[in-house]
Formats: sequence, structure tokens, C-alpha cells
Amino acid sequence: MAKELTSRAQDYSQWYNDLILKGQLADYTAVRGCMVIKPYGFALWENMRDVLDKKFKDTGHVNAYFPLFVPKSLFEAEEKNAEGFAKECAIVTHYRLKNDPSKEGKLMVDPEAKLEEELIVRPTSEAIIWNTYKTWIQSYRDLPLLINQWANVVRWEMRTRLFLRTAEFLWQEGHTAHATKEEAIIETEKILDLYADFAENWMAMPVIKGIKTANERFAGAEETYCIEALMQDGKALQAGTSHFLGQNFAKAFDVKFSDKENKLEYVWATSWGVSTRLIGGLVMAHSDDDGLILPPKIAPLQVVIVPIFKSADEKKMLDEKVDELLKQFKDLNIRVKYDDNDNARPGWKFAQYELQGVPVRLAIGVRDLGNNVIEVARRDTKTKTSVDLNGISNYVKELLDEIQLNMFNKAKQFRDERITNADTWEEFVNILDTKAGFVSAHWDGTPETEEKIKELTKATIRCIPLNNEQENGVCILSGKPSKERVLFARAY
Amino acid sequence: MAKELTSRAQDYSQWYNDLILKGQLADYTAVRGCMVIKPYGFALWENMRDVLDKKFKDTGHVNAYFPLFVPKSLFEAEEKNAEGFAKECAIVTHYRLKNDPSKEGKLMVDPEAKLEEELIVRPTSEAIIWNTYKTWIQSYRDLPLLINQWANVVRWEMRTRLFLRTAEFLWQEGHTAHATKEEAIIETEKILDLYADFAENWMAMPVIKGIKTANERFAGAEETYCIEALMQDGKALQAGTSHFLGQNFAKAFDVKFSDKENKLEYVWATSWGVSTRLIGGLVMAHSDDDGLILPPKIAPLQVVIVPIFKSADEKKMLDEKVDELLKQFKDLNIRVKYDDNDNARPGWKFAQYELQGVPVRLAIGVRDLGNNVIEVARRDTKTKTSVDLNGISNYVKELLDEIQLNMFNKAKQFRDERITNADTWEEFVNILDTKAGFVSAHWDGTPETEEKIKELTKATIRCIPLNNEQENGVCILSGKPSKERVLFARAY
Repeated sequence: MAKELTSRAQDYSQWYNDLILKGQLADYTAVRGCMVIKPYGFALWENMRDVLDKKFKDTGHVNAYFPLFVPKSLFEAEEKNAEGFAKECAIVTHYRLKNDPSKEGKLMVDPEAKLEEELIVRPTSEAIIWNTYKTWIQSYRDLPLLINQWANVVRWEMRTRLFLRTAEFLWQEGHTAHATKEEAIIETEKILDLYADFAENWMAMPVIKGIKTANERFAGAEETYCIEALMQDGKALQAGTSHFLGQNFAKAFDVKFSDKENKLEYVWATSWGVSTRLIGGLVMAHSDDDGLILPPKIAPLQVVIVPIFKSADEKKMLDEKVDELLKQFKDLNIRVKYDDNDNARPGWKFAQYELQGVPVRLAIGVRDLGNNVIEVARRDTKTKTSVDLNGISNYVKELLDEIQLNMFNKAKQFRDERITNADTWEEFVNILDTKAGFVSAHWDGTPETEEKIKELTKATIRCIPLNNEQENGVCILSGKPSKERVLFARAY
Repeated sequence: MAKELTSRAQDYSQWYNDLILKGQLADYTAVRGCMVIKPYGFALWENMRDVLDKKFKDTGHVNAYFPLFVPKSLFEAEEKNAEGFAKECAIVTHYRLKNDPSKEGKLMVDPEAKLEEELIVRPTSEAIIWNTYKTWIQSYRDLPLLINQWANVVRWEMRTRLFLRTAEFLWQEGHTAHATKEEAIIETEKILDLYADFAENWMAMPVIKGIKTANERFAGAEETYCIEALMQDGKALQAGTSHFLGQNFAKAFDVKFSDKENKLEYVWATSWGVSTRLIGGLVMAHSDDDGLILPPKIAPLQVVIVPIFKSADEKKMLDEKVDELLKQFKDLNIRVKYDDNDNARPGWKFAQYELQGVPVRLAIGVRDLGNNVIEVARRDTKTKTSVDLNGISNYVKELLDEIQLNMFNKAKQFRDERITNADTWEEFVNILDTKAGFVSAHWDGTPETEEKIKELTKATIRCIPLNNEQENGVCILSGKPSKERVLFARAY
């Protein structure tokens, strides 16, 4: 019996939760705002992580690991960064529990084990890393420093949602140090391109590359670059950010290097990250009312084979053929599973793999065997075809590529149809309420107007697209002159 | 200029720190007891992790990720486990900072943001995981559950040492659930074998498999299996543990399943882990007064090629040849680097790679090129040979295998020579003070005697070896009868 799902039309938000929970990606825990990433969800994350990790290494980055804790005095050193995260951080104040004298078998915080200085559980690691870089960087020969770490971080969010906004999440954070401003900006942009490539060509999720306005900038950055994706409910999702940090952290932590002329200069910095939030985006970019639809390139399982039989003899005949197929698939590096578990009927399995978004499902019975064919079902289009068993592995290999491409094209078409120009306030509000998606509109460039628009419509400026077309216009709210359109949307 | 190292004879402990710090494995940070794992050290950890991860997956385990925090009420549910870790845990009590009104630009913990229930930063995850398993396990069909996670944990140790004992460390922790006691014990032993195989065949570090006494058992376990290694100063190192947890956690968290006869039973559990501590063991098992010696199978870099030249023309000739070699090495999956950085002289590079333990160093000059040879230097034996360039890649490939084996054999001989029988108290004390290593001696089986021996000599029972020979004897301290010898040592 497959579990019943809420449809998108019924309740989009519940649909999303159903997919995450019943699709076995994650589960709630007893810890407020923290989830457990279940094995199926974690296998998806591992695939994403491995692709990104290779891309980082191929572009000269190395991994390291910095402490989980940031002493308060370091945390507050870069003031804007501290201000940005102070309101949502978990704070360690004690290092020991003791028996609670008033409650048998219970423990209490030992008041005598109070830390002299509180430790912040890292919400991001610029502070602890730049305090360390201070001892690693003396000369231009020590630069650039191109370091990434895979880590857990904690931000005490008040309203949490599985994957999209959790108190603890997993991410990677790159922290690079450079001798010149130009080099740091090139790095920031290189990573933005890397993220966009990953989102589009691996997650099949089209993104718009752009720059954040001052209001939406990372706390402590000079410039925040981002990739923005569109979800099926017309809301935008910030899918990755790459920050040019200028010399802010170098100045806060006094990190200088002597250049080739032996002159002391502050170091230039970047930082950049993507997180398990991407999985939330992946779910909402592609899935349907029957469950998840996962892009083949990162799906934990690409192909599942379900046998259909009435007797042990029939099963044995199928097993023999499937053993051959498994070998063929594995030779092509296809992630395949033969589900011959006899606790569940084929129909139940079909629904379950549909729910879990396995790109290709193969079903084979004895009659198929006699006809030398196998039934091939695509998760993305839900079409079924009977395919000759000769050459089936190459057929499936090509089909996986086709599904990957089809998912991207479909998502891109959906997104492209939802970038709408608005030239007046009425148009702007109307589009947000009736069509949703990105609204491309003129804005006078002031934080005040941006804030006002957010108050009135809940829409924010998602980004100023890179290589944005310059055109004269007037701000939709203030009527003041503007040189370019920016992209607004309601967002996650 | 190579950095000067303390020798083992001078100060073993300082030698160890020198190797870690100057060998670029790790560094101190501003956070008490927490280190940063530097890129070279982290690449080593990644290699170790990848091998272990594949072994776990090949034996049917899957990865997941559980929360960093354990609410106090869950933490204290399994009393022995709670008692074991209560005295050394980091506790989150607040979730917000605010501006300190008394200090411009400084932050303070916001007293109004006190958590209703304190959160413990996980020192180990049995509690949070078994509380989650409760909702995942209903029937025998849900078992076994074979889950591992790679994570950071925090234990507030008073005296810390790089890698060996840090407040935060990285590890993997497996947590499995089974329908029967027998199956859980088989799992516990299977993982012990896996750890021993990894230690011996990848880290080249011989280990003794055994069982801990009640005193040394993991808090909350019925039985703790361990692998014990010997360091060059004659002290033992617990390198990995695998625990049979019985039904302790199932009872504490009320995790029951209905068996095939529809009867409700408590679930049987195991947990097991190895950590970044292994790197400390690796360093102390193999290295010498000139630096690290890393086993080829997990060394971040297996081969380094250093060119020796006087002019740009000479350099160009060498480059051409080395390009060929690099291709050949990479085709054989050898991790190789060509160090043609002209900021440093060959001698400096030789010392640096020696310090960092790169297994094979190749040096080539123009005269070598003329003779079609290259100089091959082994890190483990410090021998140098001139080798024909034809077939050099296969030569090096075989040499790497030989080094791996030689390192294991050398460490094994060292270890085997330091397992000494003691039949009287005088012998026992004398061996500990003059020869060190493991002392195999009779013990009366009581925690009191074990405790007394520890007080008197600082030696603990490292383990009761698996498949231990049974022989009648008398306890070295109490003179009471004993059926078998156990292994004592002073330990890290």
C-alpha cells in the first residue's frame, strides 16, 4: 500500500512535507528545528557533495576542518557579521552536568562549570577561520589560500522547514585569501559559475546568476553574488551564494601580508557556500503529485528492476536474466537495484519507487522473458514502453541522459514563462498575486524603496542579474528614474 | 630551510607535536582544546574515511545524519551512558546574543533567550539515535537497521593533545538495531574485524583484537570490543571500539518490535566508532626523528618529483620528461606531484617532503636524463637508488606496495618484541619501567585489583585478547587464581 500524498493544489506546503517524509529523505527529531537526514536523503546529499567536492578540487581548492565553536570575542570582531548572526545562534555556556539533588536519576547543569568565555556554535566560520589565517599568512608566497570545509552549522531560526530552513544544517563553506582585490573578485565569480553549472547540469535546476542588493547582502560582505531558482509555486529560492568580502575580515583580525615590494597589505577575502537547502530546492523544482522526481545524475538509485512472478520457478527464471542485466548496468556505472523482496507486491513497489523518484523502473515477467522484452517506465513523463532486452543497458543509459535533459528543459520552460516585466505598480502587484514567479521591474536603487516594496507585497529583490541589460525607466514604486530592471519575487 | 625537529629521545611528546605542527597535519586554534585539521592532514583523513566508508557500504551499512544536539531529558535516559559522559560535555543554554549595554560594540548572552531545556552537544549519539529509531522500528521487517554517520562530537577533556584527545573530534559512529542477541554480537565482531583489517592493511599498524574489562567498557555497553595498537614509546593506543549494547538503549527509549509470531520484543543494539585519533596513532606508530612516515595506501601524496637544474633550458628539458612520467603515474592511479616551485631549493624540498612523510621521492637532473635514469628515495628506509627511466612507473608502483608491507612488518616486529610475560609483581613493574609495551599477566578478574594496579603503576588492562589461550596461574597482585593472561600497558 503506497502512502497517500497531499496534492500541490490542495496544500503546496503539506505536499512538500509529505514528499520529504514519505519519500524517506528526512524526518523530524526531538530537537527543535533539527531534522535527521535519512539514508535515502543522505545518499542524495553524498552524490551532490561528491560532485561539488570534485569541482572544488579541480579548481585548486583543498579541504580542511576548523572548530565548531567560536569564542564570543572572535565572533564579535567583525561587527556587521556579528550583528547579522547574533540573534540566531546557539551558545555554549557550561561544560559539565551533575546529578540533580532534587530529582533522583536526573541531571542538571553544574553551575560551577561555567565557561569563562561563552562559545558560539558556528553559524558560519569567517571569524574562526580568519583568526587562524592570521597565523598562516605572512607573505605573498602564502597566497592565495583556497580552502573549503564540509561542516554542520547552526542558526537558531524561529520558523523551520525540512531542508529549507533548519536550526542545524550541513553545508560547505569556502574561505579564500588573496593578494589583490581583482583576484578575489575573479574567485567569487568563478565559484558562482561553478554553483550555476552544478545546479543546472547536475540538479537540472535552472538558475539566474546575479548580485544581491545591499539589504540582502551577507553580513560582512562587500558584494554577494547568488544563484536564484524558481519553485513550482512561483516562489524563488536562493540556491547558493558567493561573497566578495573585501578586506573586512582581514582588518577585523589583522591579517596582513608582505607583498613583493615588502610592503604590508591587508589580505582580500571571499567566502561561499551551498547547503542541504539545495535538496529542498531540488524537491520543489521537479516533483509532482505522485512523489519525488530526481535527476538521474544525482539520484541515489537510477534504475530499479521489479520482477513479476507467480511461483518460485518463475522467480528463478527471472533471477537468471536479471543477474545478467545487473552486470550489464553496473558495467555502465548505472546505480541499479533488483527489488525481489517478497514482502511487497509489484503494485506497491511501483508506487513506492514513484514516490521516491527513481528515474527508471523496469518490470519483467515470464511472458516478457519469452518475448525477450522488458517494460521500461520513466518517472519524469510517466510513460511506459516495452523494450527489446538486447541492448537494454545502452538503451537505459541513453534514457537516463534524456531524462536529465528533459527535466532541465521542463524546469527551464516553467521558469522562463514566469519572468514577467512589470512597468507600473498595479502590474507588479497583479503579477505577484495571479502569476507569481520573477517580476522584472525598475527600482530606484534605494534600500528604503526596496524595504517598502517588501512590506507591501512580501516580494524582495532576488538579484540584479549579471550582465544586466541597461535601459532607462522609472521605479515602480517611487517613480524615480532607474537604469536597469531587477528581479523581484516572493521567496523561501 | 627545513624546520628543526625535536628527537624522540630528547622529548617524545614534543617530537609528536613537532611532527603534527611542522608536518602540516594540524594546528592549534583560539578555541580551548580544539584544533584545525590542515589541508594535508585533512587529505589524509579523507583517504582513511573513504576506505572505511566503502568497507561499511560493502557490508550493507548506509549513512545518515542525526542532530548535533541532544536534549538533556534524552541524554539522561540511559543512566550509565549519561553518567559516563555528564562530566565532560558542552551545554547549550541560550539561543541569542544581544548588544552589551556596558561595552560599545560588544555582545553578551541575552538572558531572555534561555532555552527551556538545555541541549548537550553530542559526545556520542546513542541517545538521539535510539529516540529516533523508536519511530522507525515496529516490526521484524524493519530490522536489521545498519546505519553509520560521519560527524563531529565534543567531549570536554581537561587535558588535550593534538589528534589524540581534543575537545571536538571527527569520527564515524555506527548504530545498528537487530532482532536477536546473536545477530547483534555477530555485527559487533564483524566491525571489529573490519577495523583491524583497516588498521593493519591500510594504516600498516598492527593491532590486537580483544575485549575490554568492565572498568574500561563503554558507558552503556554490555561488552566493548577493541583494537589496541602499540606506539613507539611503548604506550598502547585504543584505536577503535565496537560495542554490544544489549537491550540497554532499547529499554531506555522503549524501542520494541513485533517478531514473526507477533510478540513484542526489545531491540538489540550495537555501536562502533573510530575517529581522527587514528591519525595520532598513525604518526606515533611509524614516524622517525626526521618526520612523518606515511603508509602509501593512505598517504595524501605518494610520490613527489623534484627537478634539479641550473638554467631555464635545463628546466625545460626536465619538464618534458617529467610530463611523460606524470602521465604514466596517473595512469596507474599513483598520487603524484611535480614540485617545480622555484622559490625553494632541492635540498629544502627534500627535507620538507621527508618531514611530511611522502613515501617516495624522485629527483632528476640533466645528467640523469642523459643516462636515462632517475634517483629514487624511499622515506621508510631512507635508501636511495638510481633507477632506469624505462619502466619507472611500474617500478614505483611495486615499490609503494613494498613500502606498505615493510612498514607493517617493522611495526609488527616492534610490537611483537614488546609483548612480555610477567609472572610476579616485581617482573611486572620492572617490565613496565624498563621495557614498556604490553605486559601479559594473570589477573584475578576483579575491578578492585585492576583499579589497584592502575593506581600503583598507571598501567591498565588494554584488553583480554580474543581467542585467548586458557592457562592456570595466579594474579600478579592478589595471588588469587586466574584462568588466563590479560594485556596490560600504560596507554594514551
